[in-house]
Amino acid sequence: MTNQRGAVPHNAPVTVVGLGPMGLALAEALLDRGHPTTVWNRTPAKADGVVTKGAHRVESVAEAVSASPVVIICLKDYETMYGVLGSAADVLPGRVLVNLNSGTPSEAITAAGWAAKNGVAYLDGAIMVPPPLVGHPDSAFLYSGSEEVFSEHRETLASMGAPRFLGADPGLAVLHNTALLGMMYATMNGFMHAAALVGSANVPAVEFADLAINWFMPTVVDSTLLAQAADLDAARYPGDLGTMQMNLNALEHIVRTCVEQGVHADQARHLASIAEQALDAGHRDENYLAVFEVFKKAS
Amino acid sequence: MTNQRGAVPHNAPVTVVGLGPMGLALAEALLDRGHPTTVWNRTPAKADGVVTKGAHRVESVAEAVSASPVVIICLKDYETMYGVLGSAADVLPGRVLVNLNSGTPSEAITAAGWAAKNGVAYLDGAIMVPPPLVGHPDSAFLYSGSEEVFSEHRETLASMGAPRFLGADPGLAVLHNTALLGMMYATMNGFMHAAALVGSANVPAVEFADLAINWFMPTVVDSTLLAQAADLDAARYPGDLGTMQMNLNALEHIVRTCVEQGVHADQARHLASIAEQALDAGHRDENYLAVFEVFKKAS
Ligand SMILES: NC(=O)c1ccc[n+]([C@@H]2O[C@H](COP(=O)([O-])OP(=O)(O)OC[C@H]3O[C@@H](n4cnc5c(N)ncnc54)[C@H](OP(=O)(O)O)[C@@H]3O)[C@@H](O)[C@H]2O)c1
Ligand SMILES: NC(=O)c1ccc[n+]([C@@H]2O[C@H](COP(=O)([O-])OP(=O)(O)OC[C@H]3O[C@@H](n4cnc5c(N)ncnc54)[C@H](OP(=O)(O)O)[C@@H]3O)[C@@H](O)[C@H]2O)c1
Repeated sequence: MTNQRGAVPHNAPVTVVGLGPMGLALAEALLDRGHPTTVWNRTPAKADGVVTKGAHRVESVAEAVSASPVVIICLKDYETMYGVLGSAADVLPGRVLVNLNSGTPSEAITAAGWAAKNGVAYLDGAIMVPPPLVGHPDSAFLYSGSEEVFSEHRETLASMGAPRFLGADPGLAVLHNTALLGMMYATMNGFMHAAALVGSANVPAVEFADLAINWFMPTVVDSTLLAQAADLDAARYPGDLGTMQMNLNALEHIVRTCVEQGVHADQARHLASIAEQALDAGHRDENYLAVFEVFKKAS
Repeated sequence: MTNQRGAVPHNAPVTVVGLGPMGLALAEALLDRGHPTTVWNRTPAKADGVVTKGAHRVESVAEAVSASPVVIICLKDYETMYGVLGSAADVLPGRVLVNLNSGTPSEAITAAGWAAKNGVAYLDGAIMVPPPLVGHPDSAFLYSGSEEVFSEHRETLASMGAPRFLGADPGLAVLHNTALLGMMYATMNGFMHAAALVGSANVPAVEFADLAINWFMPTVVDSTLLAQAADLDAARYPGDLGTMQMNLNALEHIVRTCVEQGVHADQARHLASIAEQALDAGHRDENYLAVFEVFKKAS
């Protein structure tokens, strides 16, 4: 496609279908960067704000799809997308759909198949930031599926955030999204639980955050993970600097301290139970990273 | 004390009691920085390496305590410290003990009381890095208890790592240590689980680490936590940009994706159960940080 049509001009027209908090943020970012922007939403009044800023509101999905070479979909979920685009089946062929709603990898793969059957080029994406950060150059948008669509419309995609292409498997964007969100929740809970634990001795969270986030996280945690990621790929967990048993002892110490200080102990118990599963699976004398083997198996 | 004795010279003599992997690293760091270093260990042969590098090995704990104004204790635990120092009770008065073993806040507080009864100045500490990083200027050593001891011997302490004083409560150093370790385990598990999830689509951990640790962690997670720590202290959780219910939905989505991809789902289920506890406690319409209220209560 890139070769046939050439590079798309910087201010390519774009359509945004779906104006929830996220779709509105996308439309505003596109308008800010000079894209002629067409919008459609089931509840038309939600477009009022972006229409004031220059967006063109249309009444039907078919008009919306026909208005621009690239159509950004930002609806609640994949089911909603099928319902909404059903009324525009005739005008889909030859268009480019970029779908940014959340979902599972199998839903994304199914959607790519559906798009192929309907003669429409398809890129699946996932937005890694909340609406207020859309349009910021640091805000990552993950994409997977058609690399042709990604390359051809990269400039347009870059108007919404930093685009990152993950591979031809259309499920990769939502899979990475889900994995990163899981990591975010685990890390936030790790911090908040730690803040509650020092809070039991009246240490303010703000004071603890300076130590925990400004120093400990980058210097100790992140650097360890970066240095040892290759060991995960190689399933190489030498225990010479510390064994699973040592780490389980440390985790049990954390549980006891939580109980002693009268704060929630279940997170530490859960972490200890994962280390125990690693012990039971034969990783007693390997290092802590062997819990990766536990995580790779269904539970 | 500072006023009476004045500042301690840069190369003050130091004694290290306990030469496990950590005590050895401490003795080496002190020798590297030119401190005349006396060592004692139950199993004397473990001193061989540091004796070669210039350490002075003594045969009794009493000799070790008498050899230097400041005595670093790095034994297995508090019980071991009482046992080892029992034989040196006569020479303790007037000395300065800096105890670096791990333990619970109540053990540290008890130790400070024991020290006061024995006429010995006492500082409790916690080492936040593994032995190979001892002596590195970025390696934090946390201290609490006597601020006088901390100030007077700061230069000596700085030879082992970056000293940070947390307050007069002697339990604060080990409490922070435990809290940060808990956060570390939660974060490492968060990363490893996420790596296992994308690994189910054959994405290497090294590739994922670049996205997760070099970009997502500092840009999204850490910056959010730093920005919102003050809200934790104020118990202020406005739900206008996202509610607990929304986050529980996202967590349930993560559980489903883990099941669909055939990887471990218990961590995501645990995270969802914490969010459910927050819902049940009345935080349905508040934002995700309200799980802090769950963590503050015993479980
Ligand atoms: N908000 C975030 O922080 C964020 C971050 C990353 C990704 N996302 C993802 O982005 C997508 C959109 O999220 P959002 O926050 O904007 O809000 P949302 O509540 O997930 O979706 C709202 C949009 O879906 C439309 N919709 C829902 N049911 C419909 C139906 N049966 N027929 C037609 N349209 C329907 C809504 O139309 P009406 O206005 O007519 O109701 C509105 O346009 C979601 O998949 C979400 O997971 C959101
Ligand atoms: N290693 C780390 O990564 C690390 C990190 C931070 C903090 N720490 C803390 O630092 C402290 C020391 O740790 P470590 O790694 O050096 O090894 P450790 O196994 O925790 O402690 C070993 C030391 O304790 C002595 N010891 C044990 N039982 C004794 C007894 N009944 N009587 C006399 N001495 C006894 C050992 O003497 P022998 O040599 O005679 O057995 C040795 O000197 C611990 O509290 C640990 O939690 C360690």
